[in-house]
Amino acid sequence: MTRVGAMALEDYLQKVEAFHGHPAPGMVLGGFMVDLALKHLPPGEFYDALSETPKCLPDAIQLLTPCTVGNGWLRVLNLGRYALVLYRKPGGEGVRVYVDPLKLEAWPEIKDWFFKLKPKAQQNLQSLNEQILEAGSTLCSFRTVTLDADFIAVRRRGAFAVCSHCRESYPAADGPICRACQGQAPFQIS
Amino acid sequence: MTRVGAMALEDYLQKVEAFHGHPAPGMVLGGFMVDLALKHLPPGEFYDALSETPKCLPDAIQLLTPCTVGNGWLRVLNLGRYALVLYRKPGGEGVRVYVDPLKLEAWPEIKDWFFKLKPKAQQNLQSLNEQILEAGSTLCSFRTVTLDADFIAVRRRGAFAVCSHCRESYPAADGPICRACQGQAPFQIS
Repeated sequence: MTRVGAMALEDYLQKVEAFHGHPAPGMVLGGFMVDLALKHLPPGEFYDALSETPKCLPDAIQLLTPCTVGNGWLRVLNLGRYALVLYRKPGGEGVRVYVDPLKLEAWPEIKDWFFKLKPKAQQNLQSLNEQILEAGSTLCSFRTVTLDADFIAVRRRGAFAVCSHCRESYPAADGPICRACQGQAPFQIS
Repeated sequence: MTRVGAMALEDYLQKVEAFHGHPAPGMVLGGFMVDLALKHLPPGEFYDALSETPKCLPDAIQLLTPCTVGNGWLRVLNLGRYALVLYRKPGGEGVRVYVDPLKLEAWPEIKDWFFKLKPKAQQNLQSLNEQILEAGSTLCSFRTVTLDADFIAVRRRGAFAVCSHCRESYPAADGPICRACQGQAPFQIS
């Protein structure tokens, strides 16, 4: 029985539908990527995660590891690459798993999807997912990496204040008023 | 039986432990915040979510709504406020739920935690969570909001290219080489 992380592949695919909403090819591929990273993680007790894309991969990480956006163990940094890093703290030794374009050459349908060479309407989702399930982690490569010290440095939040404009609590270090009232909120209150 | 969203409160608290890893007070409070937002969402079929903080609240949203980071329906924008917005697309009409400092005055222990007035070691997690469960959404206020058009505009990704430096796929619009190879990666490959 194929497993991804500590989970049977079938259970993972069910969780994908429940959590992510649909069996996105990126989630199927992402399961194998997380699995490959877990298998090559340097020894240690705890690890954190970095997703280099906001598309799909953060959800694969959240389903297969203890790392979530809200608990702070997963950070998303949009570098535009379909890749993830699992790493140890302290020290920052980790493993990076990425989709290897050379390895996609043997899978034209997967390549068309991955490079968006074909309009979505012309894709056969089931056939695509079947091929990803067949190819699994053979589409990926991995490398050991070391995270920069300032990226993994523990940041303690300082004092909170009440914003004199919106009257909500905010980190006092953000300035005399909160970031939203400084103009960063992407909405207007009706 | 108290419910948060479509879930019994007890089920939600179990899911918090499984997904978030521990019964963080921010997750307990977050459950009530999402519930309040769902109750005051403008009519419509689908909605997206915005979390104004990366702390805890994104996980409450991911557990109680169809919106996740990886499916793109939840975006996290760190404005430093413990608040969330659920909104309709198109149009951008939504509801914003926030913790109201005035309403915390009746709950000194919750206020101490929320404003970080007491060291974590001096907090009684169980008593704090019990009070949050008792207070529920009475700690929060909500307002109707309209999201900015450019925030909710649908962005289609353009063509992908292979980075001449790392040999991975990346959005061609990012430049002649990918963002990571432009120096934005927070790690070194060993």
